[in-house]
Amino acid sequence: MNDSVLVVGSVAFDDVETPFGKRENALGGSAVFFSMAASHFTSPRMVGVAGKDFPEEALTMLRQHKIDIRGLEIVEGKTFRWGGVYHENINQRDTLYTDLNVFADFKPVIPREYRQTPFLFLGNIQPSLQLEVLDQIKDPKYIALDTMNLWINTKLDDLLNVIRKVDLLIINDSELTLLTKETNLLAGLEKLHEMGPQHIIIKKGEHGAFLSYNTELFYSPAFPVKQASDPTGAGDSFAGGLMGYLTTCKEIDFTTLKKALVYGCVMGSFVVEKFSTDGLTQLDQKQIELRFNALRTLVTI
Amino acid sequence: MNDSVLVVGSVAFDDVETPFGKRENALGGSAVFFSMAASHFTSPRMVGVAGKDFPEEALTMLRQHKIDIRGLEIVEGKTFRWGGVYHENINQRDTLYTDLNVFADFKPVIPREYRQTPFLFLGNIQPSLQLEVLDQIKDPKYIALDTMNLWINTKLDDLLNVIRKVDLLIINDSELTLLTKETNLLAGLEKLHEMGPQHIIIKKGEHGAFLSYNTELFYSPAFPVKQASDPTGAGDSFAGGLMGYLTTCKEIDFTTLKKALVYGCVMGSFVVEKFSTDGLTQLDQKQIELRFNALRTLVTI
Repeated sequence: MNDSVLVVGSVAFDDVETPFGKRENALGGSAVFFSMAASHFTSPRMVGVAGKDFPEEALTMLRQHKIDIRGLEIVEGKTFRWGGVYHENINQRDTLYTDLNVFADFKPVIPREYRQTPFLFLGNIQPSLQLEVLDQIKDPKYIALDTMNLWINTKLDDLLNVIRKVDLLIINDSELTLLTKETNLLAGLEKLHEMGPQHIIIKKGEHGAFLSYNTELFYSPAFPVKQASDPTGAGDSFAGGLMGYLTTCKEIDFTTLKKALVYGCVMGSFVVEKFSTDGLTQLDQKQIELRFNALRTLVTI
Repeated sequence: MNDSVLVVGSVAFDDVETPFGKRENALGGSAVFFSMAASHFTSPRMVGVAGKDFPEEALTMLRQHKIDIRGLEIVEGKTFRWGGVYHENINQRDTLYTDLNVFADFKPVIPREYRQTPFLFLGNIQPSLQLEVLDQIKDPKYIALDTMNLWINTKLDDLLNVIRKVDLLIINDSELTLLTKETNLLAGLEKLHEMGPQHIIIKKGEHGAFLSYNTELFYSPAFPVKQASDPTGAGDSFAGGLMGYLTTCKEIDFTTLKKALVYGCVMGSFVVEKFSTDGLTQLDQKQIELRFNALRTLVTI
């Protein structure tokens, strides 16, 4: 049995419109996308909150993917809802609304049986809550962190506190610039390493991702898909593939992190091809390996 | 002695301002950047036009790099001048002025001694002139083509005529969309192949470049530089490195084109680090190989 990974993040319903279609009440949220992607490598443990409107079928679907949802609280009220429209250039989107609902009062409680989980992914929630999660976890082997522009702009001190405590920081290129005031990748990475993490991943969406391992660089392109139907959840699925793969590794070194990054790109590519989590539900190991190998072949002379 | 490559393109003076500095009267133009980059692999042949104001030192500099400038006409009038300002986001620029001067009446005449050059690069000039060049060349082994949005918008029929006749089309991602109406890379490449070329390279600037070799894909990231001081000439230097390397190869197959693309990325990275052609003047073969190997290592697990 592989090690497990614990994710703390959002559980949501999304109303999404892209140039390729529209989907209402789609299951989403960082904890969901992460878990669905990681479930192809291990049995992930999810901590999050949903409202009484969260349907039984969704719970069943998560359980069918061997996701341990004992940490998913169902409380009085409505589940977090997000609505957005993606532009013709699918890298740009407008948020139509963000109804936090039960997520507004989310206080992550890590169930006793989760507290020794070796791998931890701090999904994009308020940094003070991420700190509370860290306080409840015992001797984690490897901690990865995601965040967003909102927390960089409004909760920087807390965020820097979390960043100092994690092994791997995963952010996108605009967040790199926001956090370091550097537009140059190398200059930005240098500053990020000074903030604490030995491992940093810079996501560039369709332009792939960089890994800086104690300042040594690795890069993988994104897997070129025929149609990116819905980018929602790409970053969390990337993190789920990455952390999921790491749970299968004896050691976490530069080589395993490189492979993990490629698996992250693979899982990100599957999720964007379809709406919601649809790209992650029917996958088998063979399809994942095929795409991993194709991504390696793509850069091999 | 390697085969040679003939370039037909512009010769210019640029007034450039970027967030990292300013340079006036800088030697530029597609034929100049291409030749300077290619000169590290072979002795390139240049066809272009300059005015009487073109200084002797510039001619000397080109000759010192073993560039054959018998095809560079010096005519009554002023040399082409371009002025531009790059934004904080160095991928965006505003053109301040374009004074075509002697370039307005440019009619490329290929000197007799150039007519059997095996490799030909049609730099970004009016498609009808590119067609005239093709008429003057005898049994070329390999033809590559660059173009721009202006010709896609205003001279599409001529351009499609040229595209049909070349082996390799080199364009950037926004031109891909303009030419094919496709925002998706794979869909766009499929349409471009239908237009004629068996080999297509899509440049994505700092995000690297794709090669489609009869629809088989290869990708290389751009070399991450500490400071991109001046992107002017990056595309032409890329093409110069690529075609320059090809002149050293016995066969042009998928493997040699992959390597050529990486050499293109290498030469592009050197030119953007400094203003004008400065990044290409003091290079030696060892620096080029170091960066080639570093780019390979960057994607190697």
